[in-house]
Amino acid sequence: MAAERLVVIGGDAAGMSAASQARRLKGPDEMSIVAFERGHFTSYSACGVPYWVGGDVEGPDALVARTPEEHRDHAIDLRMRTEVTGIDVAGQRVRALDRESGETYWTGFDKMVIATGARPVRPELPGMDAPGVHGVQTLDDGQALLETLERTTGRRAVVVGAGYIGVEMAEAMLKRGYEVTVLNRGARPMATLDPDMGRLVHEAMDGLGITTVNGASVTRILTGDDGRVSGVATDDATYPADVVVLGIGVEPETGLARAAGLPTGPNGGLLTDLTMRVRGHHNIWAGGDCVEVLDLVAGRTRHIALGTHANKHGQVIGSNVGGGYGTFPGVVGTAVSKVCDLEIGRTGLREKDAAAVGLRYVTATIESTGRAGYYPGARPMTVKMIAEYRTGRLLGVQIVGREGAAKRVDVAAVALTAGMTVEAMTALDLGYAPPFSPVWDPVLVAARKAVAVVRAAGSA
Amino acid sequence: MAAERLVVIGGDAAGMSAASQARRLKGPDEMSIVAFERGHFTSYSACGVPYWVGGDVEGPDALVARTPEEHRDHAIDLRMRTEVTGIDVAGQRVRALDRESGETYWTGFDKMVIATGARPVRPELPGMDAPGVHGVQTLDDGQALLETLERTTGRRAVVVGAGYIGVEMAEAMLKRGYEVTVLNRGARPMATLDPDMGRLVHEAMDGLGITTVNGASVTRILTGDDGRVSGVATDDATYPADVVVLGIGVEPETGLARAAGLPTGPNGGLLTDLTMRVRGHHNIWAGGDCVEVLDLVAGRTRHIALGTHANKHGQVIGSNVGGGYGTFPGVVGTAVSKVCDLEIGRTGLREKDAAAVGLRYVTATIESTGRAGYYPGARPMTVKMIAEYRTGRLLGVQIVGREGAAKRVDVAAVALTAGMTVEAMTALDLGYAPPFSPVWDPVLVAARKAVAVVRAAGSA
Repeated sequence: MAAERLVVIGGDAAGMSAASQARRLKGPDEMSIVAFERGHFTSYSACGVPYWVGGDVEGPDALVARTPEEHRDHAIDLRMRTEVTGIDVAGQRVRALDRESGETYWTGFDKMVIATGARPVRPELPGMDAPGVHGVQTLDDGQALLETLERTTGRRAVVVGAGYIGVEMAEAMLKRGYEVTVLNRGARPMATLDPDMGRLVHEAMDGLGITTVNGASVTRILTGDDGRVSGVATDDATYPADVVVLGIGVEPETGLARAAGLPTGPNGGLLTDLTMRVRGHHNIWAGGDCVEVLDLVAGRTRHIALGTHANKHGQVIGSNVGGGYGTFPGVVGTAVSKVCDLEIGRTGLREKDAAAVGLRYVTATIESTGRAGYYPGARPMTVKMIAEYRTGRLLGVQIVGREGAAKRVDVAAVALTAGMTVEAMTALDLGYAPPFSPVWDPVLVAARKAVAVVRAAGSA
Repeated sequence: MAAERLVVIGGDAAGMSAASQARRLKGPDEMSIVAFERGHFTSYSACGVPYWVGGDVEGPDALVARTPEEHRDHAIDLRMRTEVTGIDVAGQRVRALDRESGETYWTGFDKMVIATGARPVRPELPGMDAPGVHGVQTLDDGQALLETLERTTGRRAVVVGAGYIGVEMAEAMLKRGYEVTVLNRGARPMATLDPDMGRLVHEAMDGLGITTVNGASVTRILTGDDGRVSGVATDDATYPADVVVLGIGVEPETGLARAAGLPTGPNGGLLTDLTMRVRGHHNIWAGGDCVEVLDLVAGRTRHIALGTHANKHGQVIGSNVGGGYGTFPGVVGTAVSKVCDLEIGRTGLREKDAAAVGLRYVTATIESTGRAGYYPGARPMTVKMIAEYRTGRLLGVQIVGREGAAKRVDVAAVALTAGMTVEAMTALDLGYAPPFSPVWDPVLVAARKAVAVVRAAGSA
């Protein structure tokens, strides 16, 4: 019997995790695996780019979890710098373009994995392509930005966007000695938080010496006589800049899949079932930043570009492709980040997410510390908890604070997954010792307050 | 109508939390509250004593959450230095001894809360009462130890016991510049861990310069010509000591309650229902270190002396005493600690706990890091996971490592509470960003390995 042929499109986390897991389950005599990657790197941590730029991490090699050679050692026919330019679903083949040779060819598949990732949102504005304007989506992007920074003598950096990438890049540029201005379209930085919690991030960024301009709608990139970037214009002001970093977010890269007739959802990502199989296609799987995932709290799909999900998807896909079994049940929307020593964690629904799916809710916000108040290094943290009206079911948690703030949302992430009420959470047996927590962990304090608010609201 | 009368025995976490919560629900015209405390302090953090001794914390005031005066301001009739010496259950009265005046009197109650705490295990050995031998159970103990340290010129400290108090006191004495020897009766330090994980703690303590002697059974305390402690003798050796710290653990202080005919369990603690009402007694509640609590994983009661539980008990008792409603459903056995930069976390059952209740289990142990491997400060941690044979239900987690190790058990604590399987845990949406976690959080890596072990064992 001829070996089954698996084609993988995309050589980063989801694609190569799938390929590797499939290979663990099926040897080369049972399955041949061809993987296409259009860039220079495989299996790398894009999330590490801000820390590479900021000088915390040696790059780019340190950010590569597995090199092309290592994948080839596992009998994966990895074709670097080769872009898939067409999918023929009915004919079970893909068209590949070798970017080095310019050659185009078709390759057949029995099974296929689509892991084409996401692309940065790059608004079509005048000057956007000027030297000195950089995205930070890939290792290639990071390399290009670092080359610019080496050549640039000016010290003014403008970061466009105040989400995860934006605030992390603000920290990175600050660490490199730049004067940093963040231009944020929204009313508060970190739109993944409610505005009241975003305000805390804004204040902390102020304290770190990062200027954040809210409500700033970028209209054009200004250039100097040399054609290089010289500033950023918004609706109502101009910000001089020696370098501009774009951190506006990403959208699923699904042009290829859509052209092939594969189904996408309301957020532009491919739609799959819980085994990560593309809906309606028995032999095609998709995972990573190009898919939509089920939000277990909201009960609908979302697009979340995050390496940890991509790795899980790859693992699940590889198991299923290789004849095993795995599912990705969905997400609760956990994310953590930091700006210097400010930590930010969130999971579940924001107020507006709850309202958007028709959930009535109450909120409770408390201040506590990450260690016993008397223990050295105890620093404040603010915990906001959102619970369903009447039932008291946990809907979301947001935490902004210093050491120990971000990862505390993990407790809430598990509670959300388990469908716990805030009242049940007050009895959680969380680790206590003075260096690690007050006697009531901040999450428990928030749960206690939420219980009181739920009761008061329910009896009103 | 005359006000109802509540008597509280014990002025620390459980007792005073109960009194305070009852007072919130019932004003002085509805309920009079009399609380007895035999010592000098109320509502203090005994867990903070090692850090006070180690010089991290200013004591003792910083360790007091609420002073007697503050309690009195809330209309609680607090009688300090007054010991309850008898309970007359049928007569609904207690006998109190004022230690200052020597006066004894009886006081009636409609409702009573017993929060008598725990007492340190103090083996009856020759020399145990010699000057220079100290327990560290109360603020008074801490004060006495510090006075000894001020007077002592020698630099050799022997700590008896290698549980939480023992290892924390080893750190404290090391920080004060002592040469520290820990005498441990067991085969490994930290008997709340399995021996394979305890070995990691032992190695780390070695690395910190703390000498740990396992299998050391103390036979006597040696004294010098001045009557002060001069060393500790075990079965097979003698350890010179200028100061000896006892950290052998505690047992429930229930003599008074037992004498009154109240029910105690197999571990010597008072037995209550889930509202913390003493079994068989409609108007008596008990909480804190003097009760047994339900272990939700093992399905039987245990004795765990921990401030966080005591506070929860007090909250629940106060609600019920005050006419509200609250329950303490039980514990999963979470505990965290540290020795210098070594962090230790555990929750759920050890191997021997599982075996003791007849559960068949498998184990999986992995090594990972607390941050992305490439991120500065990424330090190793070892995670051991115990899962039920066949079902894969999580039974316990132990973590030993550096920064971020201890509180990671909280995720497992919630998963245990929710009855999750290790397979369900592999899909948990835990926070990921390079400064906070590898792309697979160590708990997820352990869960993945545990799934493989469960499958292999189940098909064998």
